Amino acid sequence: MAIHLGGNQYGKAEVRLVRVDRGAERHAVTDLNVTTTLAGDLEATHLTGDNSGVLPTDTQKNTVYAFAREGVGEIEAFGLRLARHFVDTTPTITRARVRLEQYRWERLTVDGQPAHHSFARAAGTRTATVAYDGSTAWVVSGVADLTLLNTTGSEFHGFHRDRFTTLPETDDRILATAVSASWRHGGDPADRADAAWAESFRQAHRHLLEAFADTHSLSLQQTLHAMGERVLRHREELVEVRLALPNKHHFLVDLEPFGLDNPGEVFFAADRPYGLIEGTVLRDGAPDPGLAWW
Amino acid sequence: MAIHLGGNQYGKAEVRLVRVDRGAERHAVTDLNVTTTLAGDLEATHLTGDNSGVLPTDTQKNTVYAFAREGVGEIEAFGLRLARHFVDTTPTITRARVRLEQYRWERLTVDGQPAHHSFARAAGTRTATVAYDGSTAWVVSGVADLTLLNTTGSEFHGFHRDRFTTLPETDDRILATAVSASWRHGGDPADRADAAWAESFRQAHRHLLEAFADTHSLSLQQTLHAMGERVLRHREELVEVRLALPNKHHFLVDLEPFGLDNPGEVFFAADRPYGLIEGTVLRDGAPDPGLAWW
Amino acid sequence: MAIHLGGNQYGKAEVRLVRVDRGAERHAVTDLNVTTTLAGDLEATHLTGDNSGVLPTDTQKNTVYAFAREGVGEIEAFGLRLARHFVDTTPTITRARVRLEQYRWERLTVDGQPAHHSFARAAGTRTATVAYDGSTAWVVSGVADLTLLNTTGSEFHGFHRDRFTTLPETDDRILATAVSASWRHGGDPADRADAAWAESFRQAHRHLLEAFADTHSLSLQQTLHAMGERVLRHREELVEVRLALPNKHHFLVDLEPFGLDNPGEVFFAADRPYGLIEGTVLRDGAPDPGLAWW
Amino acid sequence: MAIHLGGNQYGKAEVRLVRVDRGAERHAVTDLNVTTTLAGDLEATHLTGDNSGVLPTDTQKNTVYAFAREGVGEIEAFGLRLARHFVDTTPTITRARVRLEQYRWERLTVDGQPAHHSFARAAGTRTATVAYDGSTAWVVSGVADLTLLNTTGSEFHGFHRDRFTTLPETDDRILATAVSASWRHGGDPADRADAAWAESFRQAHRHLLEAFADTHSLSLQQTLHAMGERVLRHREELVEVRLALPNKHHFLVDLEPFGLDNPGEVFFAADRPYGLIEGTVLRDGAPDPGLAWW
Repeated sequence: MAIHLGGNQYGKAEVRLVRVDRGAERHAVTDLNVTTTLAGDLEATHLTGDNSGVLPTDTQKNTVYAFAREGVGEIEAFGLRLARHFVDTTPTITRARVRLEQYRWERLTVDGQPAHHSFARAAGTRTATVAYDGSTAWVVSGVADLTLLNTTGSEFHGFHRDRFTTLPETDDRILATAVSASWRHGGDPADRADAAWAESFRQAHRHLLEAFADTHSLSLQQTLHAMGERVLRHREELVEVRLALPNKHHFLVDLEPFGLDNPGEVFFAADRPYGLIEGTVLRDGAPDPGLAWW
Repeated sequence: MAIHLGGNQYGKAEVRLVRVDRGAERHAVTDLNVTTTLAGDLEATHLTGDNSGVLPTDTQKNTVYAFAREGVGEIEAFGLRLARHFVDTTPTITRARVRLEQYRWERLTVDGQPAHHSFARAAGTRTATVAYDGSTAWVVSGVADLTLLNTTGSEFHGFHRDRFTTLPETDDRILATAVSASWRHGGDPADRADAAWAESFRQAHRHLLEAFADTHSLSLQQTLHAMGERVLRHREELVEVRLALPNKHHFLVDLEPFGLDNPGEVFFAADRPYGLIEGTVLRDGAPDPGLAWW
Repeated sequence: MAIHLGGNQYGKAEVRLVRVDRGAERHAVTDLNVTTTLAGDLEATHLTGDNSGVLPTDTQKNTVYAFAREGVGEIEAFGLRLARHFVDTTPTITRARVRLEQYRWERLTVDGQPAHHSFARAAGTRTATVAYDGSTAWVVSGVADLTLLNTTGSEFHGFHRDRFTTLPETDDRILATAVSASWRHGGDPADRADAAWAESFRQAHRHLLEAFADTHSLSLQQTLHAMGERVLRHREELVEVRLALPNKHHFLVDLEPFGLDNPGEVFFAADRPYGLIEGTVLRDGAPDPGLAWW
Repeated sequence: MAIHLGGNQYGKAEVRLVRVDRGAERHAVTDLNVTTTLAGDLEATHLTGDNSGVLPTDTQKNTVYAFAREGVGEIEAFGLRLARHFVDTTPTITRARVRLEQYRWERLTVDGQPAHHSFARAAGTRTATVAYDGSTAWVVSGVADLTLLNTTGSEFHGFHRDRFTTLPETDDRILATAVSASWRHGGDPADRADAAWAESFRQAHRHLLEAFADTHSLSLQQTLHAMGERVLRHREELVEVRLALPNKHHFLVDLEPFGLDNPGEVFFAADRPYGLIEGTVLRDGAPDPGLAWW
């Protein structure tokens, strides 16, 4: 019986990098969680423990910090610089992926003025994944930890029923979800300036929120599609949006036993189980994703 | 050998309550995590399983939801109504404590206008703890999940050294912390209006942030004291502030091995271990805390 | 510009099911976390909110509980029954995936005797993923939350060095990891008896542990390969093993500043960052995985 | 208006220490999470930032690692050595507390033989808290992360009912809890040998489990009391037991809508809310706790 090594990869996960830019008038802070992943000709270390082709994960971590010395800027561009470096300078490595999470900090206000060097952590994480194979680069941007809620404007009825169906139909429910969304950039990302990455993110994020708020929802699937579609309609540099939307159930509490009605006012926010709706919205003729979703 | 029952209490933890107020123009949402705790004459259930004096924790949960039907308002006032109810209507119960966490939701903006019924979860949790013993009530307000960072303006030197001390002195470091702060109200909370609770919280929160930003820090202890002092100086209804400030260490990365300097720009954000600084600031002549910190 | 719906799926995540089997002499407990995922012709709900093809996630949850009434048995078989049901009875659904996590409970011992109905939760989670497309079923079994540690017998040297490499070589380190492993069954799983699933899991689990303990490791990659290979060599019903092994770094503490040596005795267990080694070991001629890794 | 500093303390939280003892035949591993807390004359650092009385938390961490070089042994004794050191050698420090969590590792078995240096992490955490004020030491031992479940032998009825009570009475339910228990040692802990600490823990832990299994429960309070009482009856070196027992609710699923009965077999394990029962059991004439529960 013969056995062989299949797909494999390795890297350093969750390198916590904080970069301070010390302007004269105001400091700025960039707070990242970076994960690097490399793949290539790595049979030797798996089969014999010969590590001559292995760039240590410790080195990958060092590289993240050293590259940050020259500035970080937008995470898509920082990820591209790192991914290219790993593939272009390590003989055995043919593919690199860099995943970045950026935590938001808001400048504090003191006496009505923006503080010079003081910040509070805000909700919402910006994400980017960059993949590179030595010639082509793919960039996916996104958000995580973005929890949204509509107090009305959501219905759910007309669904398929079988013998295990007891769910009542509703024409008014709370719709709440923690958005995980990723959008793939088309074209060649190499020549994108930091300002373009920033603007692309700002607008995609805005359209996600607005579509969530604007859509009168007959199903969370419909909301999901509306969110992806809105982003693609407004941002021509993007070709695909993937969304995972947990349905964070809010159940109307039955107050009848206490002689009270409950006209859509008092809810129990449940933890588990939760619905999970996942879907992709694509521009017609979107290019092959290659390693974008590796 | 004889054995006896000592201090004891019981209740329902983490009742997740979401309240929607359906105004014509705009909805509002109140999102709470409520924990009720009761104490009194409960020996029978411990010693013999006679539950005739036990108000079930399920009933406590029901009560939270039923009371929410009449509106929640500010969490201090809602907690007071609940605590009084439990003690005043349950024969065996002589003390009640209600802990409330309020999660922040920010109204979304669509096309530059505030949305009617759409919200995003924001960082920072407002807290309140209410205790009541049948005659006196105590109220403590606070914050949790409030992460602050100064990129400069923090030193640490001149500390005690022993044979295990290797820490270098520094006159410029990042100071970051996740604030847990609680402040005790003096006077009789019974006649406080919702607007007063809201304003008290808003101002205490503001002074905490401003003291953090304004204090040139020689130690996290000094910053802690400045935060508590600032709150007490500006809010005469408060008599005590308790703070727990983890020192979320940010270590300057040594880039010398790569031929790079690092003038306070690239940091590693560490998880564990972390410093933990805890302290209390009191107004002179503050009344006895009673059950405030139960 | 035209836009279309791409891949999509939906289901109920984390249905917490506890099943008690009430034998006369002893009770048994089965504790599961079940996630169901369905895919098929679901365009209508995404595009127009027409839900006539949607089996509610609430119904999926109900189905898990109702099926448990007839007994659960081994999770692979339970997952197969559920997956087939969803596809075979729901007109729009062409594919179903059921993911199951089983938490371990150990019977307590009282006065040296096994207790009748009392259990303690133990570490280690057994997992299974079943996929079904209306004609073929795929089964993957596995483990999660399995943390292993070798105090010696691990080296790491001879690796590739570049200008960012500072890691010293070592011929004796702690090797610790939290194993996530999944192994794919070959053949037709339909006619597998509960006893066969149980024995297959027991032996695969045993061989993973023994390979971890037995392998003198020159790299975590080598250990990973040895674990996968050992399982395949001993279990002919399996055709592929996938492993994700975080390298939970344990750094030798430098005690020299205190005049102490440290001959491999005192370590700091770090949280982040961590190495992450992922790899696949395959039997030659393994059949196409189909939906096994969906 | 005058303001003053109240109670305060500081220290290093969650120092992760792994100690390897390298016996010839077998290695042993000790895995700890240590938190040190110091108090004393610390006004200066709070009020003026004069740190001359502050032993840095970094030094406290170093001390934990340096002391481990001489061996750890039982955590109560290790905590005593550390607490005494901090108070006895730091001029400003008058009180120290050391909290220790010990994670369990079980030796792997290979080919039926105990492995030389290979371990798997097991559930259940042993804890100790040591306090010292320069003359007296207090020791509390305990457990955390110990989840227990009885599938029967638990009733709950005869409770107080008010207008918000809807809970049905039951004479057969699942009783599940995650035990947090701490027990205070009487007498002078100074001259206790490692073997005595180990035996005390082993027996207290055993009696907790056996009391949980043996008690036919009419309320979780009754079970709590039985657990504490059993420990005190069997261990004369202990004088007080404190328990916090969340009631991890398991709700019988209503299968009637599907034409099925459910004779105590299929349960939904709920996350939140949960009951929380806290209580203390004391030996008559137990000495004053002093700083034991600081």
